[in-house]
Amino acid sequence: MVTAESPVLRQLDAFRRIVGAGFVFVDPEVLDAYASDETEDLHYLPDVVLKPGTPEEISQVLRICSEQRIPVTPRGAGTGLSGGALPHLGGVVLSLERLNRILDIDERNLQVTTEPGVITEVLQNAVREKGLFYPPDPSSRGSCMIGGNIAENSGGPKAVKYGVVKDYVLNLEVVLPSGDIIWTGANVLKNATGYNLTQLIVGSEGTLGIVTKIVLRLLPHPQHDLLMLVPFRSAENACAAVSAIFRAGYTPSALEFMERDALEWVMRFVDNSIVPIQDDVVAHLLIEVDGNDMDVLMKDMEGIATLVQEFDCGDILFADDAQQKAELWKLRRRVGEAVKSNSIYKEEDTVVPRAELPQLLAGVKAIGKKYGFHSVCYGHAGDGNLHVNIIKGDLSDEAWNGSLKEGIREIFALVKRLGGTISGEHGIGLVQKEYLPIVFNEVQLALMRGIKQLFDPNGILNAGKIFDPK
Amino acid sequence: MVTAESPVLRQLDAFRRIVGAGFVFVDPEVLDAYASDETEDLHYLPDVVLKPGTPEEISQVLRICSEQRIPVTPRGAGTGLSGGALPHLGGVVLSLERLNRILDIDERNLQVTTEPGVITEVLQNAVREKGLFYPPDPSSRGSCMIGGNIAENSGGPKAVKYGVVKDYVLNLEVVLPSGDIIWTGANVLKNATGYNLTQLIVGSEGTLGIVTKIVLRLLPHPQHDLLMLVPFRSAENACAAVSAIFRAGYTPSALEFMERDALEWVMRFVDNSIVPIQDDVVAHLLIEVDGNDMDVLMKDMEGIATLVQEFDCGDILFADDAQQKAELWKLRRRVGEAVKSNSIYKEEDTVVPRAELPQLLAGVKAIGKKYGFHSVCYGHAGDGNLHVNIIKGDLSDEAWNGSLKEGIREIFALVKRLGGTISGEHGIGLVQKEYLPIVFNEVQLALMRGIKQLFDPNGILNAGKIFDPK
Repeated sequence: MVTAESPVLRQLDAFRRIVGAGFVFVDPEVLDAYASDETEDLHYLPDVVLKPGTPEEISQVLRICSEQRIPVTPRGAGTGLSGGALPHLGGVVLSLERLNRILDIDERNLQVTTEPGVITEVLQNAVREKGLFYPPDPSSRGSCMIGGNIAENSGGPKAVKYGVVKDYVLNLEVVLPSGDIIWTGANVLKNATGYNLTQLIVGSEGTLGIVTKIVLRLLPHPQHDLLMLVPFRSAENACAAVSAIFRAGYTPSALEFMERDALEWVMRFVDNSIVPIQDDVVAHLLIEVDGNDMDVLMKDMEGIATLVQEFDCGDILFADDAQQKAELWKLRRRVGEAVKSNSIYKEEDTVVPRAELPQLLAGVKAIGKKYGFHSVCYGHAGDGNLHVNIIKGDLSDEAWNGSLKEGIREIFALVKRLGGTISGEHGIGLVQKEYLPIVFNEVQLALMRGIKQLFDPNGILNAGKIFDPK
Repeated sequence: MVTAESPVLRQLDAFRRIVGAGFVFVDPEVLDAYASDETEDLHYLPDVVLKPGTPEEISQVLRICSEQRIPVTPRGAGTGLSGGALPHLGGVVLSLERLNRILDIDERNLQVTTEPGVITEVLQNAVREKGLFYPPDPSSRGSCMIGGNIAENSGGPKAVKYGVVKDYVLNLEVVLPSGDIIWTGANVLKNATGYNLTQLIVGSEGTLGIVTKIVLRLLPHPQHDLLMLVPFRSAENACAAVSAIFRAGYTPSALEFMERDALEWVMRFVDNSIVPIQDDVVAHLLIEVDGNDMDVLMKDMEGIATLVQEFDCGDILFADDAQQKAELWKLRRRVGEAVKSNSIYKEEDTVVPRAELPQLLAGVKAIGKKYGFHSVCYGHAGDGNLHVNIIKGDLSDEAWNGSLKEGIREIFALVKRLGGTISGEHGIGLVQKEYLPIVFNEVQLALMRGIKQLFDPNGILNAGKIFDPK
């Protein structure tokens, strides 16, 4: 909180001069609105919220905060799931929401240059109007911002065919904690010119610099897609079908897994029972193919439908039209919200090599049994990325805040044994950092801390996220 | 050279104990064989060549060299074009040639784990036998090593559809200059777990650590491909056709540009005049499409063939069969050798956003006229990656070693103005580092130097490559 002694308070006039008095907020309602993101039920009040309008303003703010050692938490839309935008040390929340312009859609080069505060879906629609395609689309695409997607190296359902955010970022304008403004690379598809600063910034969760311009490569938009929902009587079979599909040479544009609970809960949540679920069904795969030739897509769908029969699936639902596709996708996209509305929960963002999914799922359930928690699992099975939602339900507060962590550790240790890691697309942020030593030893962590120290010697920028300072 | 005082000489016994006496070389013939790579006519003798057999041996060697501040130059096959493997400071050449095993082809997860000393084409063929595809294939794939490809973030003709090396590297085992051995990530397709050390190592040209194991993702191998060679009466038209093809929604699996000289010289070099070149033809595009459905590929080829007519092309040569395809590809792959055999030359590896290619080419020719040099241009036009081969020809030694550099600077300044950069796939190494400040300012360079310092505080590993130490 701001006190007479607070170094933040002493800078309020300077902040007002830099960003304009109308964009410096200290009233409790605003502070409260910027105190949480979508991570569990966590809440930390900042001392001040700044809404700068240009990279130059951000540069001046960071220069002051570096000198005065004031913590700065950059924030996009606050839809993160690992606490990256939580101002857990107080100080400044620096909102990028006013940097919300798409600066250039370059149809000649299939590139877009955008500011970070653009809603991801707005960006997708804008390039779509030119026949172009920006594939990464987190479930929150209607509310998250592209800058946050860069910070977390987001994925989403299309990643299985098209890759994640990092695969589309060509070049970034970044304000460093020193106030220097740099570009990380060039607007080119191939680059062997010095160290890859671009990829170092992608996924660095706002700890190394503040991204103020983003150059993304685009693709021609595929002209058609087809979608089917396949029920399974065994979740392990569903997971096993996933890697069989790829081994058979198919590359679906989405391959999503949902446990029965996930689908039932979300249908209740959105009040839509489009999908009849037989009693013996325990999981579904949502499978999409896309491309420019409908005959090829039909053949692919038939081939995949034949293949999944070998895994004891039930009756396949083929989406008839655009509306049914949209409804099925809405169900998948809103599972997270449905789970959240149902109970306090923790979401783990496990990722393993795709063929290890059956082992991961069986292991999660066994660990749940041991520690007495229920889990609802769903996610991007085609990438081996399984969201494990641990439901508080009847669990005592003591177990929830105590022994449960041991259970999570066991899940992550299993993930590591299977060749995977503890976050596929949500980041480490605040809530996963205690688990980071499960996958990185002191040598690796020392390199990461050294990089942090190099970019941010005074430790102002999202300090204490990903890992604690030494 | 080794002298009684040389710190290298004092360690020979230790090196022999670590890697075995049979793998420590100080005889002049061996030193000479490791004194050059494929970069111009440069030649630097190392003091000793070591051929370790395991990461642990490399670890022990690096520990000693760090303590004793002995320069270490890691080396794959020595096919590099920017001098990355040249031991310009003497000291140790550390050859990775004995780490030449493919450790695991994981058909379940579409991944391969390999040591760095495997020839790229050997790796491609090994996964091909399982129906799998590792796309990046530099022209030197028959002789270069996969570890060198990682070091330089190599590309090759398939990059236009499939991306470059960095897009396939999931995880790396790296020996740090301290002797510590780490993995940089996990064997997963999505990863939001800490800073991306993997992508920091890719393209770092052996300056940060020595890669000893590589995990690559693979694709199902496409079943068919089609190839055509299109002659143009204007090089600018050829370049303009390139971006038109992408804007029309086609994604060829290769889209290569060759000036008339390039094609004529290579046909002479390999003694094969498969391609009749009309008098008015000044450039060619070699265009490949690949996929699993031959009907779709035929349609794509027809569409592209129709489109290129708008750019005043000549008679298109469609490759009839596998042999003709192989011959056309051989021509393209050996252009570099043909140019080299023809004259002393310098090769610049320019890259710009694809639609700026006509401007780049026109600019290169204008600058050549101004400085009196002839250039032969070819390369991966689909990526905007143009190899500019500057021919010594009748140029005086004085101009070659003097004013020519100003001409190169002008080319690179143009590249930068067009949104590009000075190396697309060859790296900076030794011969391009003087030009690096054209694209990076002191802030960016300080970050890169800081990263180098963090990984290699004693500055032993490929020191003086990419940039000079501060």
